[in-house]
Amino acid sequence: MSATDYQDVVERVVAAARPYVGAGKVADYIPSLGEVDPNRFGFAVATVDGRVHGGGESATPFTIESISKLFALSLVLGHDGKEIWKRVGQEPTGDPFNSLIPLQLSKGIPGNPFVNPGAIVVTDQLLHDTGDAYGAIRALLRAETGDPQLHVDAVTAHSEETTGNRDRALAYLVADFGNMLNPVPETLNHYFRQCSIMISCEKLALAALFLARRGVRADGSRLLSEEDARGVNAIMLTCGTYNEAGEFAYRVGLPCKSGVGGGILAVVPGRCTAVAWGPGVDDKGNSVSAAAALEAFVKLTGLSPL
Amino acid sequence: MSATDYQDVVERVVAAARPYVGAGKVADYIPSLGEVDPNRFGFAVATVDGRVHGGGESATPFTIESISKLFALSLVLGHDGKEIWKRVGQEPTGDPFNSLIPLQLSKGIPGNPFVNPGAIVVTDQLLHDTGDAYGAIRALLRAETGDPQLHVDAVTAHSEETTGNRDRALAYLVADFGNMLNPVPETLNHYFRQCSIMISCEKLALAALFLARRGVRADGSRLLSEEDARGVNAIMLTCGTYNEAGEFAYRVGLPCKSGVGGGILAVVPGRCTAVAWGPGVDDKGNSVSAAAALEAFVKLTGLSPL
Amino acid sequence: MSATDYQDVVERVVAAARPYVGAGKVADYIPSLGEVDPNRFGFAVATVDGRVHGGGESATPFTIESISKLFALSLVLGHDGKEIWKRVGQEPTGDPFNSLIPLQLSKGIPGNPFVNPGAIVVTDQLLHDTGDAYGAIRALLRAETGDPQLHVDAVTAHSEETTGNRDRALAYLVADFGNMLNPVPETLNHYFRQCSIMISCEKLALAALFLARRGVRADGSRLLSEEDARGVNAIMLTCGTYNEAGEFAYRVGLPCKSGVGGGILAVVPGRCTAVAWGPGVDDKGNSVSAAAALEAFVKLTGLSPL
Amino acid sequence: MSATDYQDVVERVVAAARPYVGAGKVADYIPSLGEVDPNRFGFAVATVDGRVHGGGESATPFTIESISKLFALSLVLGHDGKEIWKRVGQEPTGDPFNSLIPLQLSKGIPGNPFVNPGAIVVTDQLLHDTGDAYGAIRALLRAETGDPQLHVDAVTAHSEETTGNRDRALAYLVADFGNMLNPVPETLNHYFRQCSIMISCEKLALAALFLARRGVRADGSRLLSEEDARGVNAIMLTCGTYNEAGEFAYRVGLPCKSGVGGGILAVVPGRCTAVAWGPGVDDKGNSVSAAAALEAFVKLTGLSPL
Repeated sequence: MSATDYQDVVERVVAAARPYVGAGKVADYIPSLGEVDPNRFGFAVATVDGRVHGGGESATPFTIESISKLFALSLVLGHDGKEIWKRVGQEPTGDPFNSLIPLQLSKGIPGNPFVNPGAIVVTDQLLHDTGDAYGAIRALLRAETGDPQLHVDAVTAHSEETTGNRDRALAYLVADFGNMLNPVPETLNHYFRQCSIMISCEKLALAALFLARRGVRADGSRLLSEEDARGVNAIMLTCGTYNEAGEFAYRVGLPCKSGVGGGILAVVPGRCTAVAWGPGVDDKGNSVSAAAALEAFVKLTGLSPL
Repeated sequence: MSATDYQDVVERVVAAARPYVGAGKVADYIPSLGEVDPNRFGFAVATVDGRVHGGGESATPFTIESISKLFALSLVLGHDGKEIWKRVGQEPTGDPFNSLIPLQLSKGIPGNPFVNPGAIVVTDQLLHDTGDAYGAIRALLRAETGDPQLHVDAVTAHSEETTGNRDRALAYLVADFGNMLNPVPETLNHYFRQCSIMISCEKLALAALFLARRGVRADGSRLLSEEDARGVNAIMLTCGTYNEAGEFAYRVGLPCKSGVGGGILAVVPGRCTAVAWGPGVDDKGNSVSAAAALEAFVKLTGLSPL
Repeated sequence: MSATDYQDVVERVVAAARPYVGAGKVADYIPSLGEVDPNRFGFAVATVDGRVHGGGESATPFTIESISKLFALSLVLGHDGKEIWKRVGQEPTGDPFNSLIPLQLSKGIPGNPFVNPGAIVVTDQLLHDTGDAYGAIRALLRAETGDPQLHVDAVTAHSEETTGNRDRALAYLVADFGNMLNPVPETLNHYFRQCSIMISCEKLALAALFLARRGVRADGSRLLSEEDARGVNAIMLTCGTYNEAGEFAYRVGLPCKSGVGGGILAVVPGRCTAVAWGPGVDDKGNSVSAAAALEAFVKLTGLSPL
Repeated sequence: MSATDYQDVVERVVAAARPYVGAGKVADYIPSLGEVDPNRFGFAVATVDGRVHGGGESATPFTIESISKLFALSLVLGHDGKEIWKRVGQEPTGDPFNSLIPLQLSKGIPGNPFVNPGAIVVTDQLLHDTGDAYGAIRALLRAETGDPQLHVDAVTAHSEETTGNRDRALAYLVADFGNMLNPVPETLNHYFRQCSIMISCEKLALAALFLARRGVRADGSRLLSEEDARGVNAIMLTCGTYNEAGEFAYRVGLPCKSGVGGGILAVVPGRCTAVAWGPGVDDKGNSVSAAAALEAFVKLTGLSPL
């Protein structure tokens, strides 16, 4: 497709998603998320050549939340190769992302890197590897987007910290099984901050292009091996949208990662990335309007690899 | 790739899998499975134009086992459209394929069509829709392969019947929650027979080509809508290889469905199907040599869509 | 207390339970249970000398249901000594009586003899030991009560059989783990019949006196060792009233066994037995009015051993 | 029995337990516990008139550990009446004392006051009621034993603190469900100290006499209503020895509370208390020699109420 074609697709997707804007429920477990206007919506596509096409509020920053898990995982895989897979699994789970049940049964080895305990272990590894997990993620996002201003929302990070008892329970259970390298409060401090980064659809689509480029960053350097780039896409497809991943794979058929801030990032390997954002999420934590947008995107373009 | 290229790939795959032949453990929960020589191995690729390329013992029939679940699901989707999704979910699970725990927690709605209770529900639906679930599956396989002799192995079917207490427990639990249309023994009779069908790598690759053709059968008629064909591929990718599906997606990156008879079927949407068979399975129930073959196939061809 | 005192206590208990008669919900999973008038109520006390004191409808037969598990266990312990404890545990459970979850986790060894799978295993052992489990239970009840007419209600037994899918699931799961001696349908046939025995408060109080007499039957022969008699009382106290046993122990402080037919049997070791019956049960399956009666009985007599 | 009889029983019990001394494994999750000589053993009986009879090392202090949960519960019941039962259940559980699984399923309401999360909730309540939970427990123990020196072992308390990740996970999960009144670290600080109190068999037997006296303390004042005293005994019988409570009830037939320090406290309502101590514990956490001692005590005296 040409650049004009992509811009046309973006506009059609925005129109198709319109009826779903405002549906769902804005996550309100922390005040700063709950204050977002439920009627906002943005959509952007970035192609592997680095061009980006946006529609709606595609330049408005929102809270990245769980989509940050993708960048933490990619950085750790870039540093460590396969070592992280001794500390966390690759299997999807039928359980909610914050469940302690499978974590206890597996003796502190989280099922995959996108459930909360798995992401905490990944951040713990990144903190161990780099000395500054949050800083490493922010640096990656800044470099890939060319935006030196990209930053955490301090109010949200503070709110995450004050409401984070479930994550503390998960992290201490991991620690009880000997699977934490840093003190729990330190790892969680980085984890809460990485979840509170503000980023727009357009920037996020650019930031994740290395997954569409089979591991290669904007500057041409390699972040991930081809194998690991495919692997991260596979984990997105099987585990990226909480315990709704199966239904997403059926409906959308693209590797996706969602966040309770209302963003969903999708990868079309070899072609492009697409990011949709709408604050209203369903009871699994996935944005209703963003899911509708990505479903329309696949229907309009036929870009599902399945 | 040309036909010569495919034949060349097949031979390279057979060579690459050779070191893994004999590894794993032959499933022996029923005598007729346990008697199979662990050193057998076959591999075949069928392209969407209906050509088939085989290597090793690619013409030797083996027991289809859980791969039959794929055909039952496709037939039910062809008849019923989306009605079956009221009776079974689409979500991958971290639990073993024969666990009663998630089934009780979900009040008799199996997590997906490839865990045993899900497959029993699908067969129950197919029996209700057609009056002969086993017959319908056999007819589909015969039509797609052009082999009118394809049949059940009566000894295996009898063995499945006599050792099927776990499946009975699952089916009666489903029935207790009101999610069975036929008497449990009738549905299970069809289920045990469908699992005992004998088929070779080459025939199985042909039989599943409709999934590579986005729903279209060998005679040009449509079995599945494009959406449902993509959906079945998605369920294979997320749930097709028991609770090792995540690792398979990472390593192989293709929609796959395995059986404890040692077969694994893979789909390359738009291109081809590939079937590998080796009787030795790992502790999750997936063939060690067949997995190695499919991993080599993807590496050699670059055909993963991820 | 004198006989007159006991008669007085019985009348006070009936009065104290009166406000609770009609409360709860009559079990209606089988038609014959659901047809019982919810306003019925009876209470009886039998002393170790064999006298019985009744009030309300204490001579009206009701369906024994799970209280039969007590007699099956006592018979098996009488035959086998401690062998049965290799097949079933002695631990209370926080799970419902018909849950498959702990049964799968314990690999087919039920937690205790009063959850359904445990009782099925006990009946399976009794069938193996005697060739007629139902007959053995009926013979014990007839001998202890002196009533040669005591029998099963055929309609209820048939209903249990037609609605018994959950028990089938439990039994087949036990069988899958190799913990059944007889074919599942045979054991369940005896189990369904033992649950459908009709017996009155007065007769049931007499039938269980061997537990108050530390193992000695009405004819002076010993059914249980003193140790096992104490043990059965202990299991009643810890597991006898489903997953409400802890609250019962707190409120009533007596070894009790309840049934969804609305009966509850209590033992005062060394002194007497007491049986209350009211068809309305709470959401755990224990009769509301019978529980109130036993609580009053303990308050009025101070007979709790705790 | 006369005082001479009791002293004679104590000596027989010590002799009967002798062969079991040294069996089991000394808990070593914290260093100060692991250093205890496994061959120590003590036994004491205190009668309701306040006399105490000891044998073996009955005057040697050991770490109270989970037996402290009994005193915290009694104090809270004394203050609050039944309010605590809104925050914690009364049901025994088949799960280990430190499992997060039932706690998550019950949405933060621990099953009973003797599993770790239940005890943490009780301590949290006591801290809320008194401002000093540890101090309140110590004051009770000092008053009942007449020993103003009774105190925490600071090294053990520090060790509990540094190894307490599992308890932190439990407490934060409780907090996540809104069932904590104080900050988690504050409640745990008191909890870790209460578990680290040093006390001898003789002193512990005296300290718990209020449970044998149906709620009345050494000075004649009432700590618990008769109902609650019976209730605490009931919870000891159903939940007092971890997930071995059923077997204990069968073998010993007395309300008991054990600790991983190797102590087990038993109550004979209306008569006496008995405390045995031997550091080697079984895989459920109950002392092997102390259990043997209490089993002998019941056999020799016939004092089981069941």
